[in-house]
Amino acid sequence: MPDPLNAFVPGSQVYVTGAAAGPLAGLRFAAKDIFDVAGHVTGGGNPDWARTHEPAAAHAPVVQKLLDAGATLIGKTITDELTRGILGINAHDGTPVNPAAPNRVPGGSSSGSASAVAGGLVDFALGSDTGGSVRIPSSFCGIHGLRPTHGRIPLEGILEQSASFDTIGWFARDPAILARVGAVLFDSAVEETPAFRLLVAEDAFAVADDTVTAALAGPLDRLRALAEASETVRVCPTDLRDWRAAMGTVQSWEATRSFAAWVDATNPRFGFDVAQRFFASATITAADVEAAGPVRQAHCARMAEIMTPGTVIALPSAPGPAPCKGLSQTDMWDVRARISLLTCIAGGAGLPQVSLPLEVVDGAPVGLSLIGPAGADEKLLACAAALHVK
Amino acid sequence: MPDPLNAFVPGSQVYVTGAAAGPLAGLRFAAKDIFDVAGHVTGGGNPDWARTHEPAAAHAPVVQKLLDAGATLIGKTITDELTRGILGINAHDGTPVNPAAPNRVPGGSSSGSASAVAGGLVDFALGSDTGGSVRIPSSFCGIHGLRPTHGRIPLEGILEQSASFDTIGWFARDPAILARVGAVLFDSAVEETPAFRLLVAEDAFAVADDTVTAALAGPLDRLRALAEASETVRVCPTDLRDWRAAMGTVQSWEATRSFAAWVDATNPRFGFDVAQRFFASATITAADVEAAGPVRQAHCARMAEIMTPGTVIALPSAPGPAPCKGLSQTDMWDVRARISLLTCIAGGAGLPQVSLPLEVVDGAPVGLSLIGPAGADEKLLACAAALHVK
Repeated sequence: MPDPLNAFVPGSQVYVTGAAAGPLAGLRFAAKDIFDVAGHVTGGGNPDWARTHEPAAAHAPVVQKLLDAGATLIGKTITDELTRGILGINAHDGTPVNPAAPNRVPGGSSSGSASAVAGGLVDFALGSDTGGSVRIPSSFCGIHGLRPTHGRIPLEGILEQSASFDTIGWFARDPAILARVGAVLFDSAVEETPAFRLLVAEDAFAVADDTVTAALAGPLDRLRALAEASETVRVCPTDLRDWRAAMGTVQSWEATRSFAAWVDATNPRFGFDVAQRFFASATITAADVEAAGPVRQAHCARMAEIMTPGTVIALPSAPGPAPCKGLSQTDMWDVRARISLLTCIAGGAGLPQVSLPLEVVDGAPVGLSLIGPAGADEKLLACAAALHVK
Repeated sequence: MPDPLNAFVPGSQVYVTGAAAGPLAGLRFAAKDIFDVAGHVTGGGNPDWARTHEPAAAHAPVVQKLLDAGATLIGKTITDELTRGILGINAHDGTPVNPAAPNRVPGGSSSGSASAVAGGLVDFALGSDTGGSVRIPSSFCGIHGLRPTHGRIPLEGILEQSASFDTIGWFARDPAILARVGAVLFDSAVEETPAFRLLVAEDAFAVADDTVTAALAGPLDRLRALAEASETVRVCPTDLRDWRAAMGTVQSWEATRSFAAWVDATNPRFGFDVAQRFFASATITAADVEAAGPVRQAHCARMAEIMTPGTVIALPSAPGPAPCKGLSQTDMWDVRARISLLTCIAGGAGLPQVSLPLEVVDGAPVGLSLIGPAGADEKLLACAAALHVK
């Protein structure tokens, strides 16, 4: 299979034909290389992880479900190492092409899945989102992406990073396909015409570049026109940095523990930025995690308070378009820190978020995101369809 | 060239014929892949360092000098990444075989050079020693190795780690060849019969395994019989951990700075243990370095006080034989910390040290080391020859 985008795992050959009939019959998809596919090693974006693991015995249930619904799996895609990245840079496998802005990074960690979808190689692709790994590449590559409600889709058969935040998500160019995949994975009906009340998150917009806020004004107006009511709110009563810090503490603590024994035994090769994450998080103590608890509880309580049933929050998916390739490590840390001010809002509270490719800034895509109450994934998919300009 | 030992840099082909005549005519040597060889990239044990550097324009002066003296260079050898390792483990290139104990590591960072010499592939090999990178692989592989007086051999044309401690050293099975190489590189005559006063470093022996101390008792007796006088001393008036900490602070500070800009720009792949060194040292402050100054001065003053001209200090080269392969990261840190209690004694004071392959413990070599006053390299080489059992 030609791979002009460097979206697929180098050297891998994975092809599993879907059922002849079903709601996804005729669609082609790819899966991030953290999903088990029977007979293939789940490589996790790291050569030493791949080297020290056996081929999977069975498909991950989510992969099986898509195959059973008629979709055909045509490949496994590049991921940031062990899902620990947000920019789509993998020091071993290279950076997948961002088809919407080839001089920029694609975003990650579900980088290859976003690249393959944006480049038209597949109809949809599976990714995962712990701290933004579906939402950010959706925004950077100019495609639709859903991070579902935490816990709604079981995580069996995928590489675990942080159990408190890991979700399985997916990408599509067409929001109708995004919704059809959702109907299969949620075992639910596609919601046709969404009824919703809109909250515009002013503290989230304050994080974004002015050019992003200006560009998203038009789509926001269209969204307000669709809503039953709308108002502007500050989602975090204190400072988004508090929510980010609390989520970051717990996520890093869990992620480090997920891989600690393997790292200790294997001495794996990591890109320096990935190794840095392990070290930064090694300084987190159990007391830090305990101290983060009340902040996380307040975060969840605040979101539940403002997100009455039928409410949808609008915010920028990312502070800006994808950064250009070749950033220094120092600059990358600044970019990541700013991104996570936005991704923590839904991620830290386990809420669903969809990113919509509605605008372009400096010649590169920027997404508008919608967050819904827990379990309102179908409503977000319906909003995405309603806003879509064909 | 066949390389059953994985001693040479994979994929490299370096062969430079030496002058037809000269004091080293007919000898074959190898050079750690931190020495410039004209027309070849100096890879430094890291694929991203190799990828981001151009081929060297000229031979390192020390390589040129050996070629001019008649020795032929037959290859460049594997090194721990950027010389930052002491066990001989390279996550990219693999671990060179320890021919004297194939189930054990060879020691590093001059791992391939020690392996090639111990396995008989070359007559001698160039390495470098900042914190033990010649002395430890000498001990582990059962060969002779010299770390010269700091500053005696110019460092032009080699990859710098830590300017305050870097030295160019070399290995040989035969101490006569070790001395002949010394005569060329020092521009001096080989000293024939050494006259020396012996100090046995009791605090250094206290660091070693009891089995090592017991095994080295015989060689120590032979050494005493050769000496004009001998006594037992405690080299460090306080605790070797003080000297180790002060040297470690300065070395880590310098090493991190040597590579900081490149790391920031390149996001290189590192084995986890190597990345860990960069992070551990990133926490060192200028104040820490300043505080280490008086300790280092006291260390140098103490060594100058006890090392009157003609004095030689005997100590174990390493606390034990080479550790077996497959150690966890956690265990490796303990091994390294104990090794550096011994290597800091000469290293922190810039003194020359030779390691002699005189004993075997648990089926693996252990070296006896001799430290001399600054500039007494030739005397150490003469002692090595005098103690050699053919």
